[in-house]
Amino acid sequence: MDQNALKQMVGQEAVKYVEDGMIVGLGSGSTVQYMVDALGKRVQEEQMDIVCVATSNKTEDQARALGMTVKSIDEVDQIDLTIDGADEISKDFNGIKGGGAAHLWEKIVAINSRRNMWIVDESKMVDQLGAFPLPLEVIPFGSSHVFEKLEQLGFHPEFRMRDGKHVLTDSKNYLIDLHLGKIDHPETLAKQLDSMVGVVEHGLFLGIVDLVIVGTQHGVKTVKK
Amino acid sequence: MDQNALKQMVGQEAVKYVEDGMIVGLGSGSTVQYMVDALGKRVQEEQMDIVCVATSNKTEDQARALGMTVKSIDEVDQIDLTIDGADEISKDFNGIKGGGAAHLWEKIVAINSRRNMWIVDESKMVDQLGAFPLPLEVIPFGSSHVFEKLEQLGFHPEFRMRDGKHVLTDSKNYLIDLHLGKIDHPETLAKQLDSMVGVVEHGLFLGIVDLVIVGTQHGVKTVKK
Repeated sequence: MDQNALKQMVGQEAVKYVEDGMIVGLGSGSTVQYMVDALGKRVQEEQMDIVCVATSNKTEDQARALGMTVKSIDEVDQIDLTIDGADEISKDFNGIKGGGAAHLWEKIVAINSRRNMWIVDESKMVDQLGAFPLPLEVIPFGSSHVFEKLEQLGFHPEFRMRDGKHVLTDSKNYLIDLHLGKIDHPETLAKQLDSMVGVVEHGLFLGIVDLVIVGTQHGVKTVKK
Repeated sequence: MDQNALKQMVGQEAVKYVEDGMIVGLGSGSTVQYMVDALGKRVQEEQMDIVCVATSNKTEDQARALGMTVKSIDEVDQIDLTIDGADEISKDFNGIKGGGAAHLWEKIVAINSRRNMWIVDESKMVDQLGAFPLPLEVIPFGSSHVFEKLEQLGFHPEFRMRDGKHVLTDSKNYLIDLHLGKIDHPETLAKQLDSMVGVVEHGLFLGIVDLVIVGTQHGVKTVKK
């Protein structure tokens, strides 16, 4: 099975956890895209009554196009279950997200969800976080100075660019990816980045996920915290 | 002397600290407005060669209209001296800023300045911070949930509104003012707010200012750290 087939498989598995009447958080990214397709199909076939909350404009557009009810996070009290992807998941259930530039909204939705499920192919399961570059969403104003400080800290920062221009998040901020290689102390790093002026949010998701669905060559594997 | 006369007086005093060749950070707010006027006059009369970095679109417009050279913070390496106002300054030289909705950019400019000077009328000098509401700049997405958490923490939050609409910062974010009454442990509070997802920046400026110029009924008072 190629990676896309694995992504489709976990997307289909994930939507089995959605129940009628739920408020469901929809993550972002290529794996989530398969999941949203599968959810749209289930909602239509079973005439389910669910409300979706999207973590990016792109996911919102997809869900609406499939005929699902989408509300803003600020229109709901709490989300029952959020299904999202991840760029890396370590054995202690911490993760890196933001490869798709949506980690700020994803984190806001995640912390307002009763349960969080991540769906990944097996390549995302790692012993230690950090091989995947850690994304930061930063305020454009003064971002060159944030970059410089990150460089001085030895974090190997890189602005995320496309066609010579800064990639913009849905909140119209810039992205800086930190090429750390490995992250020995995620909690300490998270605090350090939290306190940096101009850094809106980092892609470390610590203690957030409850359930991981992994697509492997031998089928779907479900890992509970 | 009324408050405006005091503001004008400290504005005129502050610009005496500007030297030829400097990169000068310009704060925001009504006191700063007088200072920028006085600086524009000095630059013109003495044909000074200075570069300004503004902390708000409004201040930038004013400086440009006065014929001054304005560069973006990302076009300069470091700022020599930043002159800004403050909403409250305690005896230990900590402050609250953001009453004018500009504290995010003000803080970014401040931490990239070699020296920071605040100019205030004497009503801003307090024993303890907190009578002035503490401003937070927050991401609009999910802001109702941030508000709710702040309420649960007993921080008495209030969205800053004008004509029934959210006041927007120059970064297009919302503002929440915390009516705390008094702040016993500013450092602890700062860390707590730093770690809140969706809070871009709070208005606590701790350990940043070097020199305060206070306008009093008996003239200008200069207080060094």
